[in-house]
Formats: sequence, C-alpha cells, structure tokens
Amino acid sequence: MKILLTNDDGVHAPGLKALAEAMTALGEVFVVAPDREQSAVGHALTLHHPLRANRIDENIFAVDGTPTDCVNLGIHSLLSFKPDIVVSGINRGANLGDDITYSGTVSAAMEATLMGIPAIAVSLVTSAEGTNYDAAAQFAVKLAAAAQKKGLPADTFLNVNVPDLPGERIRPPLVTIQGKRSYEGTIIDKVDPRGRNYYWIGTVDLNFKDIEGSDYHAVSRGHVSVTPLHLDLTNYNSIALLKKWDIF
Amino acid sequence: MKILLTNDDGVHAPGLKALAEAMTALGEVFVVAPDREQSAVGHALTLHHPLRANRIDENIFAVDGTPTDCVNLGIHSLLSFKPDIVVSGINRGANLGDDITYSGTVSAAMEATLMGIPAIAVSLVTSAEGTNYDAAAQFAVKLAAAAQKKGLPADTFLNVNVPDLPGERIRPPLVTIQGKRSYEGTIIDKVDPRGRNYYWIGTVDLNFKDIEGSDYHAVSRGHVSVTPLHLDLTNYNSIALLKKWDIF
Repeated sequence: MKILLTNDDGVHAPGLKALAEAMTALGEVFVVAPDREQSAVGHALTLHHPLRANRIDENIFAVDGTPTDCVNLGIHSLLSFKPDIVVSGINRGANLGDDITYSGTVSAAMEATLMGIPAIAVSLVTSAEGTNYDAAAQFAVKLAAAAQKKGLPADTFLNVNVPDLPGERIRPPLVTIQGKRSYEGTIIDKVDPRGRNYYWIGTVDLNFKDIEGSDYHAVSRGHVSVTPLHLDLTNYNSIALLKKWDIF
Repeated sequence: MKILLTNDDGVHAPGLKALAEAMTALGEVFVVAPDREQSAVGHALTLHHPLRANRIDENIFAVDGTPTDCVNLGIHSLLSFKPDIVVSGINRGANLGDDITYSGTVSAAMEATLMGIPAIAVSLVTSAEGTNYDAAAQFAVKLAAAAQKKGLPADTFLNVNVPDLPGERIRPPLVTIQGKRSYEGTIIDKVDPRGRNYYWIGTVDLNFKDIEGSDYHAVSRGHVSVTPLHLDLTNYNSIALLKKWDIF
C-alpha cells in the first residue's frame, strides 16, 4: 500500500511526523507538504506563479505552495504512481463545523477526492501546541486500514478530529455530522509606524453549537469524531422553495 | 437597501463595474474588493499578516487580500453598517460543479453566509474576457430583488452562472443542482535559467458530466443557472454505511 501524506502546518510539523511514523505500519509512506505553515488557505490552488519542490529526504518533498498544490503536484508530477490513500494532517487544532471550509488540511483531502483517491483529514483538538499526536496517529492508522479494506463511498472523504488526550482516555470513535459555529469575527484595526492604518483578522474563539450527533458534540465529550464529507454543496431542501419564486 | 459587492478578479474588473452600475437600481452600493486578481484562492483567510485597505472612491475600497478577507474586513471594519445583501462577481469565467470549492467568488458569498447575511455569487460563462456582463448584471439585480423580498432559506446562498450571450438570447433561469467535473489536471514541469526545476499547475479543460438538472446542463443549453448552496458538506447517505465498520 502506498500512502501520500500532506498537511497545512508545514513539512516539519510534529503532527505530520507522528503520522508518518505510525503509517509505516500500513505501507510505504511518501510526504509532499508545504515548506511552511499554510493554515486557513482553504482550497486554494496556485495558478499564477510556478512552484518549487525541494526533496529533503528520500520520500519527503517540501513545496512552496498550499496543501492543495502539494496533493496536485505530488500526484501529477513528483510521485511516479497514484497513491492508494491520501492522509492529511495531523493538524494542530480542530477542524470542526463550518470552519472546515477554511481548512488547508481538509482541502487537501478534498483535492485527493476530486482525483478519485480515498482521503482522510486528521486534526488534533487542541488550542496549544498539542501533546498527544501519537494517539491520534494510531487512530488514523486503524481508520486508513478500515477504509482500504471496506472502500470509501464514492466521492466521499473522512474528516477526523481526535481529542488531545492520552490514548487510554480517548472515548470510542463516533460517526458524526458537520456541526455549526456561532460566528464571531474580530478585526484588529491599528496604525503603523508610518501613520497608515492596517487591519489584522483576529483569532476567533471556538464557539460551536452543541448539536447532538455533530463533530463538536463528539469531541467535546472526549470521543473521536469521524464525519463523512462530500463536495456537493447543493442545499437540496431549498430547491422546491426557490422554484416558487416568480423569476423562475 | 445597502449592497456590498466584492469579486476575485480585482477591484478594476469589468464584471464588478457592470454589477455595481446595475445594482444602484436596488439601493446604495459599496465595493470592497481585492486590489488584484485573486482567482482560485478558495475560502482562504489571511491570518498571518496584516491587510491594507485603500479607499479609491467614496464607496470603493481595494484590499490586498482574498475575497474572503474583503467580506470579513468590509463588514467588521470598513463599513459602519451590516449590508442587506452581499453580491460577489461578476466573475470572468464559470463557477460550476466541484470547481466552486476553488472559487474566490463563491467563497466570498460563503463568508457572508457564515455571517448571516444573504449572499449571491454571479459568474459569466466565458473562456475569454467576456462580452455580456450587462445582461448578467441585469439578472443579478432581478435575483437580488427577489431574494430580498422572499428571503433566502437559512444558511443558504445562491451560485449563479449566466451564459455569455446578449440578454435577448439568454434562456430562462433554472434552479439547478451542483454538477460534477471529470477531473483532469496537468502540471507543466520545466527547468529555469539557473538549471532548477519548476512546476506550474496547468489550465484544466472544462469537462463536466452532462447531468440533467445540473448547473452545467443548464448553462450549456443557454439557460441561467441558479444553484442553492449551503456549507454543510456532510454526506448523510454514507453515515449508515460507515457505522457498520467494525471500528465504530
């Protein structure tokens, strides 16, 4: 089994190292990851300038682009084969609810899915540096093995969030739905040393609605959360309603 | 009615100008848009450096960030009010099928939706510069008026694609579902003047599956396509299947 790993915290991040080590239990591991942190880049693809790939070890490439670029470049150019699975992570910090639309980690799994390759995004629910990457990596191995054996549903990838706890304290994994955040943004508005205004998008407190069955509900109670995601954003429930508007 | 416009082609793009002109029929128009082209940036948010906003006209701000940054900064800082609607576009080029996950235009509407503001993304289906922005803008005005009158379903925004045809040749609007692309990526792999490799993500031929009722199906037959989207990526159909895996 050939496994491609990437992330958005950069090629030297501890979460990626823990994941790479653990995944060797399943097969041959290749890493194509950003050369620096690329969080909150969403599903961004670099179209307007060239990319560089630096081979920093036998099976490890550092790319000066986004996680989506890494998957794209890895599969179309740097690797001479199509991997059996793409695993993205382990992200430092949760990827829950609506916030996943900003996530480089989740978007890398999205990109693999668009290429028809099974994919899993894994995040550690931590607001600090994160302690228990190894426990999360062990779960990722079990889940990747299951996905390989059972096959993922068509066009579907898995978004995994693991509480930052020692393995024995993590509660059993639950299949969840994507939750919802109560949005609260802030902008820092200041004046620079030359008298010009600048704006900095503030950190936003994680504040999720405690919806039963959701990703947040699971991890906030110490469970691993596994959400099956797809790329179809259609809100099917509103189609009939819209069709009643007199412009249609 | 107060209307906030943005786009991903940049503040000086003809699609935005056509939209701004047409929208004055509905109310007061404000523009907060990237100072340069920001296509394929997805739902990227700039967290790691400050942003600058340049007021280039009474109600027009140019920001050195992504479309998502523009909506965020506009609503939280540059404007002194919450707009009644956010319209993003008119994009030069279609935003159809899975490709919308890369789109800065669509992501700006996504950002407004996260803030609880009704939002519409509008794109002109053209592979060249685009000719008929005015016809597309006229439809956007009609749709925005209808959305204002009827109200959009909760957490839902509209993704609109208009064929690049004179108004009288455009066929009636259809409510559609998000289509699917047959993915084919290419990487240009070359050597630079100093002998180092570089990679450039290639342009990808638009190649959609002709699914009845989809966005692509509509626009390829000359109709305007209006797809209701939401931010819930959960694949509900696969939840029961996953729960049968023995790790859950």
